[in-house]
Amino acid sequence: MDKAEWIAVDWGTSTLRLWAMQGDRVLAERRGDDGMGRLDPGQYEPTLLRHAEDWLTPGRVTEVLVCGMAGARTGWHEAPYRPVPCTPAGPGAVSVDTADPRLSVRILPGLSQARPADVMRGEETQIAGFLASRPRFDGVLCLPGTHTKWVQISAGEVVSFRTFMTGELFALLSTQSVLRLSVAPGGSDAAVFRQALGDAISRPESLASALFSLRAAHLLEGQDPVAARARLSGLLIGLELAGARPWWLGAQVVLIGAAGVTDPYRAALAEQGLTAEVVSGESMVLAGLCAARTGDLA
Amino acid sequence: MDKAEWIAVDWGTSTLRLWAMQGDRVLAERRGDDGMGRLDPGQYEPTLLRHAEDWLTPGRVTEVLVCGMAGARTGWHEAPYRPVPCTPAGPGAVSVDTADPRLSVRILPGLSQARPADVMRGEETQIAGFLASRPRFDGVLCLPGTHTKWVQISAGEVVSFRTFMTGELFALLSTQSVLRLSVAPGGSDAAVFRQALGDAISRPESLASALFSLRAAHLLEGQDPVAARARLSGLLIGLELAGARPWWLGAQVVLIGAAGVTDPYRAALAEQGLTAEVVSGESMVLAGLCAARTGDLA
Repeated sequence: MDKAEWIAVDWGTSTLRLWAMQGDRVLAERRGDDGMGRLDPGQYEPTLLRHAEDWLTPGRVTEVLVCGMAGARTGWHEAPYRPVPCTPAGPGAVSVDTADPRLSVRILPGLSQARPADVMRGEETQIAGFLASRPRFDGVLCLPGTHTKWVQISAGEVVSFRTFMTGELFALLSTQSVLRLSVAPGGSDAAVFRQALGDAISRPESLASALFSLRAAHLLEGQDPVAARARLSGLLIGLELAGARPWWLGAQVVLIGAAGVTDPYRAALAEQGLTAEVVSGESMVLAGLCAARTGDLA
Repeated sequence: MDKAEWIAVDWGTSTLRLWAMQGDRVLAERRGDDGMGRLDPGQYEPTLLRHAEDWLTPGRVTEVLVCGMAGARTGWHEAPYRPVPCTPAGPGAVSVDTADPRLSVRILPGLSQARPADVMRGEETQIAGFLASRPRFDGVLCLPGTHTKWVQISAGEVVSFRTFMTGELFALLSTQSVLRLSVAPGGSDAAVFRQALGDAISRPESLASALFSLRAAHLLEGQDPVAARARLSGLLIGLELAGARPWWLGAQVVLIGAAGVTDPYRAALAEQGLTAEVVSGESMVLAGLCAARTGDLA
């Protein structure tokens, strides 16, 4: 087993990713489902060791750099937010005391915005990774997910950002609400999605009634549950695009994320006449952790 | 124990109310939490008997008239919807076979609307109860709840209606989403509610980002959880009022329901310059069941 020079960690709410690193080179990668949402503060160090102990060199201290929800108030150790405008990776990493002397753990801070009140934790590292390869980028990044982020970038800094709870609304409505009885667990329908998108963009105020119609259409017309899922997705992303219009209208937009989550956003923006570039989020976090480590940042 | 001439039943998703009746006179009333959401079809008759067996006269068949979700496809026995425009109570009650020969059970139908697709089950009986005492009412009824109904009444008929999932969204967001960490389980704040209401009415498209700001304001400013609850309520009712504007603008509006659910709607409509009449929903269901029974309706 290769020993790590340092260990990069993306510790999110539901998942954990770790890389054994030699400089910017990946020696090994692991994933776990022991996200911050399942852990008490005392469980972080044992969890880290369970995944990465064989990457440690006996008698040597190995640096561990962590981003994501592990730095939340309810995570391992709070890493305070850095207020925007600022670079996406910068000073403020917080050192965490560990019982194991082989570990030197630091957690990267998130970003905050005062007006309107907003926060991010983890996405700033993806943004740092994107800017590491595109340092002159001037435009808007959209990172779709449970809490989708729209981020204005200029001169290497995050100027401002806005979070939309679209992904969480979709999850709640499709699995916890009365609509769960009418919405398929998967599948899509491009035409239905487009129609719903247009409905929500032109009448965002009708959301709560348009949602109930999904249930009624199932009861009255036997509406296809896959179509209902596409319509739910279209309504919620349409509402978001209506609210985020100042972010994307006339802007250069790059979508960062896995194909499954960026696809509907790309399609939705294309409907508005905007061709968004799509960048896989897979490598961005690690690139950001590398950038944070090698800058005078962390 | 008085024996019932007939038994009136409001069997909703989460609760059950039963009245032992002599004509239009109430002999006794009972409540249970064995709503449709907790019962399999085979459990309805035993549940009814457990609550009402001592109201039955040995050797005689007692009529039982039921409204609400017991008539849903996943309830006791499906009672098909009657399409609007129609009177709120009318023919179409469905007889249910029972094992106990002392019972003669009928379930009242709900109402449906083809375009936009919509349904109601239970509210039509409250509406019938309201119209029993106000037969000449011409205007709009609003029945706030998990699925709030706006109902256009004219010449004794339900002309059209629209359902908003506002109550269910509030419940999901305040107890199941990330906002549960920032929203108090009770309490209100009139000034914060009004501000949020105005924000949502003027910018309904910003809902999903305004929601996340509730979480961020808690993390960054320690926003009072009671204020967050008031703001969540204001945002969702504001979104609804924006979507329901054609229903209430310039209309005579009567709110039907318990004070706890009608209060924020009354306050929200007052902010729009509209004085809504408020009628307790308590007695409306029973009045509607009486009207359905004594008309040539059921």
